Amino acid sequence: SRSLNLAVIPGDGIGQEVVAEGLKVLSAVLPQDVKLETKEFDFGARRYHATGETLTDADLDALKGHDAILLGAIGDPSVPSGVLERGFLLKLRFAFDHHVNLRPSKLLPGVATPLAGQPEIDFVVVREGTEGPYTGNGGTIRKGTEHEVATEVSVNTAYGVERVVRDAFARAQARPRKKLTLVHKNNVLTFAGHLWTNIFNKVAEEFPEVTTDYIHVDAATIYLVTDPARFDVIVTDNLFGDIITDLAAAVSGGIGVAASGNINPSGAFPSMFEPVHGSAPDIAGQGKADPTATVLSVALLLRHLGYEAEAARIEDAVSTDLGERGGLPARSTSEIGDALAVRVAG
Amino acid sequence: SRSLNLAVIPGDGIGQEVVAEGLKVLSAVLPQDVKLETKEFDFGARRYHATGETLTDADLDALKGHDAILLGAIGDPSVPSGVLERGFLLKLRFAFDHHVNLRPSKLLPGVATPLAGQPEIDFVVVREGTEGPYTGNGGTIRKGTEHEVATEVSVNTAYGVERVVRDAFARAQARPRKKLTLVHKNNVLTFAGHLWTNIFNKVAEEFPEVTTDYIHVDAATIYLVTDPARFDVIVTDNLFGDIITDLAAAVSGGIGVAASGNINPSGAFPSMFEPVHGSAPDIAGQGKADPTATVLSVALLLRHLGYEAEAARIEDAVSTDLGERGGLPARSTSEIGDALAVRVAG
Ligand SMILES: CC(C)[C@H](C(=O)O)[C@@H](O)C(=O)O
Ligand SMILES: CC(C)[C@H](C(=O)O)[C@@H](O)C(=O)O
Repeated sequence: SRSLNLAVIPGDGIGQEVVAEGLKVLSAVLPQDVKLETKEFDFGARRYHATGETLTDADLDALKGHDAILLGAIGDPSVPSGVLERGFLLKLRFAFDHHVNLRPSKLLPGVATPLAGQPEIDFVVVREGTEGPYTGNGGTIRKGTEHEVATEVSVNTAYGVERVVRDAFARAQARPRKKLTLVHKNNVLTFAGHLWTNIFNKVAEEFPEVTTDYIHVDAATIYLVTDPARFDVIVTDNLFGDIITDLAAAVSGGIGVAASGNINPSGAFPSMFEPVHGSAPDIAGQGKADPTATVLSVALLLRHLGYEAEAARIEDAVSTDLGERGGLPARSTSEIGDALAVRVAG
Repeated sequence: SRSLNLAVIPGDGIGQEVVAEGLKVLSAVLPQDVKLETKEFDFGARRYHATGETLTDADLDALKGHDAILLGAIGDPSVPSGVLERGFLLKLRFAFDHHVNLRPSKLLPGVATPLAGQPEIDFVVVREGTEGPYTGNGGTIRKGTEHEVATEVSVNTAYGVERVVRDAFARAQARPRKKLTLVHKNNVLTFAGHLWTNIFNKVAEEFPEVTTDYIHVDAATIYLVTDPARFDVIVTDNLFGDIITDLAAAVSGGIGVAASGNINPSGAFPSMFEPVHGSAPDIAGQGKADPTATVLSVALLLRHLGYEAEAARIEDAVSTDLGERGGLPARSTSEIGDALAVRVAG
């Protein structure tokens, strides 16, 4: 009999509520012979206030043994900006070398979009997760004075760029349209831009069936609202990926349905799956949060671990559920979770 | 009698066509007693191919003597990416210390937007123009090898941030809603983020009437498509400003109507006004380009030089023109210019 050994990090705000529904759907979809074991970790604002710790070496060791990690949300207004982001979320992505940050955008039937004319949207952003301006390189001199200088260094390596670009090409190759777009700003950020562009062009030779193009990040935001159907797979750097995936989520139904995976394709460390949304403290504890993004993150988690049929069953359930509920009164967090659990159970 | 001594840089692609219409409208709107003198400069791809030069010290000296600069567009696919951007556009912004990059977004009546429900859009982005990741700091080692490392350094100074933040507060103060939003990514780019946030909060004390808030750049892209009416004035760094102003242009009628000013408020060097769009080589020379963005840039130029009534007359003319032409067949570049010239002449 098989087993799925999951680390669960509910986190802050609505994290607890949405993760509960994600686990409910996971239990319902898993084949009988798979033994699901979950271990909950209490990371986030509460832990930080109680101990001053965000993510210790011992924590990382404890997480390491799992097949994957499911995270709800981390972040609270009571903690200064950057402490939990750098001290937990980014620390985990870097420690476990989550270099493929996978963010699919699909406008499902019945889902509202701010764009006129309900365009077709079905693309995936492969965001680099361990380099770029996210490395924490940089510093400040003469802090707080009128002569302060603060720098942020974007670090880009051939090693880091090539592996994520190759991953994106493979994903494009596996999709019907087989199209990959590089998004960067190589006309201004010429050092990093040339590295990305050269490696992209080099790896392209290994994937002759994949159609490629290049767009500057500023222009990409225009296409995302005027012609999102032009995109199939996008590969981009850590910061550009952060920005365009929020926009992508907004146009394809909002962050209530946007899932993501922080993936280490080598399997050397567990990959981590989380909704794109944050902890939304304003609605926490009220049963108002939409667990759909977490449920879809569970689907990405299952696909990553080889449970393709189960992943597809979750995505179909979400699609049917959203299609049928259009125009109906809003449901509570657990009502949505229950409905999805029933659907995937079959 | 007064004089207006203008440097004109038509540039590449559609630049020539749209600048001609901008000048047509400028001539029509200027009071009789103002003597308009224009000097044309042949910068861009042609000059680069002929001489290898983009913008020399002598060029900068020649431009210096003018009251302002009107630019069409610079850029051509025949020139490697980055050469004209870094060698001309950014060189000029940096040499003339154009630290206030002003980009208004207003959805005018009759103008199509990709957003559903024709939302109200009327905000201004004050983008820093001389710092951030645009400084050209950074470099490459082991170029072209599998061990290549490329860096890009975002440089932020108290001096540079404070002057643009203060400019933005003054602009917010002068508008009816008096609201200023700082857009950054201070939870990840903590060095630069703290500098921006601290200075923003400090300068806010001098403007007690201005309401302030802060949004991460990724979330800002969401609001720009779901609730653009929430914005009045935005202040942000050079790269974030580049990205969100293209999105802002897209949602408020497209880059055909997006104007910008690269402003040195001290007047030590001439400010430069240009449409946000590029040289669009695919439609160049066909009379298809919409000169409206250039005409609106002329309005910004006039306002900067103190011709407030004339600037407003151009903006009113554009507004009326767009309102009346909705649904009518497309007009040529010069037909639009002619129509606007007639309107402003009154
Ligand atoms: C919370 C923050 C550190 C994070 C990021 O910038 O990557 C978030 O915006 C995301 O997109 O996952
Ligand atoms: C062409 C390029 C250098 C420029 C920029 O990045 O600033 C353009 O995108 C703009 O917004 O004016």
